[in-house]
Amino acid sequence: MSELEQLREQLREFAAARDWDQFHSPKNLAMALSVEAAELLEKFQWLSEEQSRNLSADTSAAVAEELADVLLYLVRLSDKLGIDLMDAARNKLVVNANKYPVDKARGHSRKYNEL
Amino acid sequence: MSELEQLREQLREFAAARDWDQFHSPKNLAMALSVEAAELLEKFQWLSEEQSRNLSADTSAAVAEELADVLLYLVRLSDKLGIDLMDAARNKLVVNANKYPVDKARGHSRKYNEL
Amino acid sequence: MSELEQLREQLREFAAARDWDQFHSPKNLAMALSVEAAELLEKFQWLSEEQSRNLSADTSAAVAEELADVLLYLVRLSDKLGIDLMDAARNKLVVNANKYPVDKARGHSRKYNEL
Amino acid sequence: MSELEQLREQLREFAAARDWDQFHSPKNLAMALSVEAAELLEKFQWLSEEQSRNLSADTSAAVAEELADVLLYLVRLSDKLGIDLMDAARNKLVVNANKYPVDKARGHSRKYNEL
Repeated sequence: MSELEQLREQLREFAAARDWDQFHSPKNLAMALSVEAAELLEKFQWLSEEQSRNLSADTSAAVAEELADVLLYLVRLSDKLGIDLMDAARNKLVVNANKYPVDKARGHSRKYNEL
Repeated sequence: MSELEQLREQLREFAAARDWDQFHSPKNLAMALSVEAAELLEKFQWLSEEQSRNLSADTSAAVAEELADVLLYLVRLSDKLGIDLMDAARNKLVVNANKYPVDKARGHSRKYNEL
Repeated sequence: MSELEQLREQLREFAAARDWDQFHSPKNLAMALSVEAAELLEKFQWLSEEQSRNLSADTSAAVAEELADVLLYLVRLSDKLGIDLMDAARNKLVVNANKYPVDKARGHSRKYNEL
Repeated sequence: MSELEQLREQLREFAAARDWDQFHSPKNLAMALSVEAAELLEKFQWLSEEQSRNLSADTSAAVAEELADVLLYLVRLSDKLGIDLMDAARNKLVVNANKYPVDKARGHSRKYNEL
């Protein structure tokens, strides 16, 4: 089993043991994931970009917990939907490579320069 | 290399080839991740919980792309912060197990019954 | 002065008195607004749609605080950008009326039936 | 009628005419609001704080639409919950004034300096 598959199994056991599957509709899981992403965002909201590159140990530890929360809900939601998360990610990388060809995207990519 | 480490390497090459590291401060990456989490949420916003358990093939494919986007930014952000994503996730599972012991959490968990 | 203009003035004084304008770049304010919107979302994440229509007094009070937080950041951000919030809202209503004409939108609106 | 009350009435008519109340559970409206807040956030994600203070006319117009979307869902959600949005905002300002007294908050407010 890959590491993400192990996580998936642990999350299945975790929810089953607590009888939480009833709450884990994909709709609810998508909401929970979004909430965790915002808790992650909150750690950076008053920092400058420069400060965000140099987090204190405490902030870094807090951020690590939020990154973890997002991944756990991502794995759980993918599982409930029967979607292979790694496959989806690999496919998206290919899509992105075609959407932003190096020669066009280098320097002033329209994606980044929409001011 | 694990699959997440492979993804990390591919994302490094992708950004370097396009000279995008300048935009990839952790602050900006956290914002982008949050935006992708909301694009994922959007797919579910007018669905009932029941409908969310039975997505059409088209919606499922669209959702897979958003799940992928979130994972890609998660891996990229963790990399920029020097945080091991899998370690963080494994640690958080342990924290969660202690926070929601089975005997207390089963049935009416206070987490889920705050009405 | 309209009520939103009064709010705008109070928020200007509030920030000035605490020397917080330095943190109130539109970028940061947009992040803060997004975080508050997620804190609002969190109150509903494990509720069914039916339960969300019948909140307890406590939850209702907690939700009211989050609604307030979103409005305060909305007014503050609009002010910093020099955008008239009420004008923008009125214009958007017109745009929406054209985008979803009653005869087309009634019943199965494509907006709501994308399954 | 205040301007927000006018908006509330227009939104009631808008939804009723299109038979959309069925989709407007508070849970769904909170999701929609969160999605709009992220669409607003997206306009700023690759901008520096300085650039965010100097938006082009096009970006400013796009941002105005997103600010409007957030306000419309805020008014609609408050209405469905029977919560007075302006009252909630005024109360929250008082709460904030007590939470961040000027003498303590000025300069290095712990809220902003949690690095």
